[in-house]
Amino acid sequence: MRYFCRVEYDGTAYHGWQRQPNGMSIQQALEEAFGLVTRQECAIVGSGRTDAGVHARRQGAHVDLPAAIDICACERSVNGVLPPDIAVFDLQPVADDFHARYSATERRYSYYIDRRKSPLSAGRAWCMTYAIDWDLLRREAASLYGTHDFAAFCASGSDLDSPVCTVRLAELEQRGNQWVFSIWANRFVYKMVRTVVGTLVDIGRGALDGRIQTIVASRDRTRAGPTAPACGLVLEDVIYPGVSA
Amino acid sequence: MRYFCRVEYDGTAYHGWQRQPNGMSIQQALEEAFGLVTRQECAIVGSGRTDAGVHARRQGAHVDLPAAIDICACERSVNGVLPPDIAVFDLQPVADDFHARYSATERRYSYYIDRRKSPLSAGRAWCMTYAIDWDLLRREAASLYGTHDFAAFCASGSDLDSPVCTVRLAELEQRGNQWVFSIWANRFVYKMVRTVVGTLVDIGRGALDGRIQTIVASRDRTRAGPTAPACGLVLEDVIYPGVSA
Repeated sequence: MRYFCRVEYDGTAYHGWQRQPNGMSIQQALEEAFGLVTRQECAIVGSGRTDAGVHARRQGAHVDLPAAIDICACERSVNGVLPPDIAVFDLQPVADDFHARYSATERRYSYYIDRRKSPLSAGRAWCMTYAIDWDLLRREAASLYGTHDFAAFCASGSDLDSPVCTVRLAELEQRGNQWVFSIWANRFVYKMVRTVVGTLVDIGRGALDGRIQTIVASRDRTRAGPTAPACGLVLEDVIYPGVSA
Repeated sequence: MRYFCRVEYDGTAYHGWQRQPNGMSIQQALEEAFGLVTRQECAIVGSGRTDAGVHARRQGAHVDLPAAIDICACERSVNGVLPPDIAVFDLQPVADDFHARYSATERRYSYYIDRRKSPLSAGRAWCMTYAIDWDLLRREAASLYGTHDFAAFCASGSDLDSPVCTVRLAELEQRGNQWVFSIWANRFVYKMVRTVVGTLVDIGRGALDGRIQTIVASRDRTRAGPTAPACGLVLEDVIYPGVSA
């Protein structure tokens, strides 16, 4: 029987979501925990991969488990077996044709930038203290909105057949001494959010000549800026129509 | 010359604010960092002590430094010398009679409670999953408002001459899967916030018979609940009239 669950994790200690031959991944930790609790092999499928060091607040996943399980007890046991930096919640049965990757209609990411050294967000934000043209940056961020070919922001090694994504929200806001860049889209190309953030920052501090729109239009990765550090990125949510969580 | 600064810290690794004979404190780390940068002995005075494991977002402190220092360079150097879990900011000259403890008119604390295992706030919240009467808890929290003798919420070992404090805000709010209890007062007795939180939780889950008001009136520590864990407590701010930060 197919079950849906949410996964929250601090990705600092992991080699990303996807199982790796050398090094622990979120997927492997989850499969081992579900396997230990249900005493059968469990394959966990996520909404998508997150890179090494990237965090998630509401990653979506599915797993096939025996129909007879006690959901609350299973969730509690899995959380007890998992290390402190991974947790599952909202475990619930779903239709057999539900798929954590293909049923997702939107992914929501936030990228956190600390404007000074900040111990209470260390490891969960990029500490970036360059002088920045804030108004320019906000306008540039907003120009990502809409359907575009994002090849210019796609790292090599992607397995996506098309670099076209529809961005439904792209905004930069100030929260205390943090800047938070939020971007929602139906899908993302490989390392897109971190490359967008690295590019925005380089534009905002005058280190990169050009505008987001012309870089997008170029489809040329060499026109975009560097990839921002993984630690600032959080997969905030994945939207599944019909799943009540 | 007297300087004011703010201090942000993750208190997990420290034996509290106050210098201790055995174990590193926030105060000692700051005094060593300022000492190394200015090449003279520096005494740091804080708005008050925080206990082992308690965090701070905007602790207030003062330190006497040579009048000729470059404030920006000094702040940057001190942050470079300090470990990642302590940072100073808003360093600025103040009047000679400014005192981080006696000039403060209000302290603001928040206590964070995770309602499920939550890796992204691990170490910065108390994970407390008892079933709780939420409405009762909110009303009880609000009843702390006003000037009261808080002897019932004072741990032994306090050096305050009087347990009377004026609470200017006491409220409980929900933020996602977290409960945040905020309390602002002119002063606090020893371990007051953690004892209030432990008492509220015990009242809310039906483990403690009584109401906050009757416990306050009793002036009897044995009537209050247990002390909540240090990790959930953050000194959010300290108010100094006339200091521009």
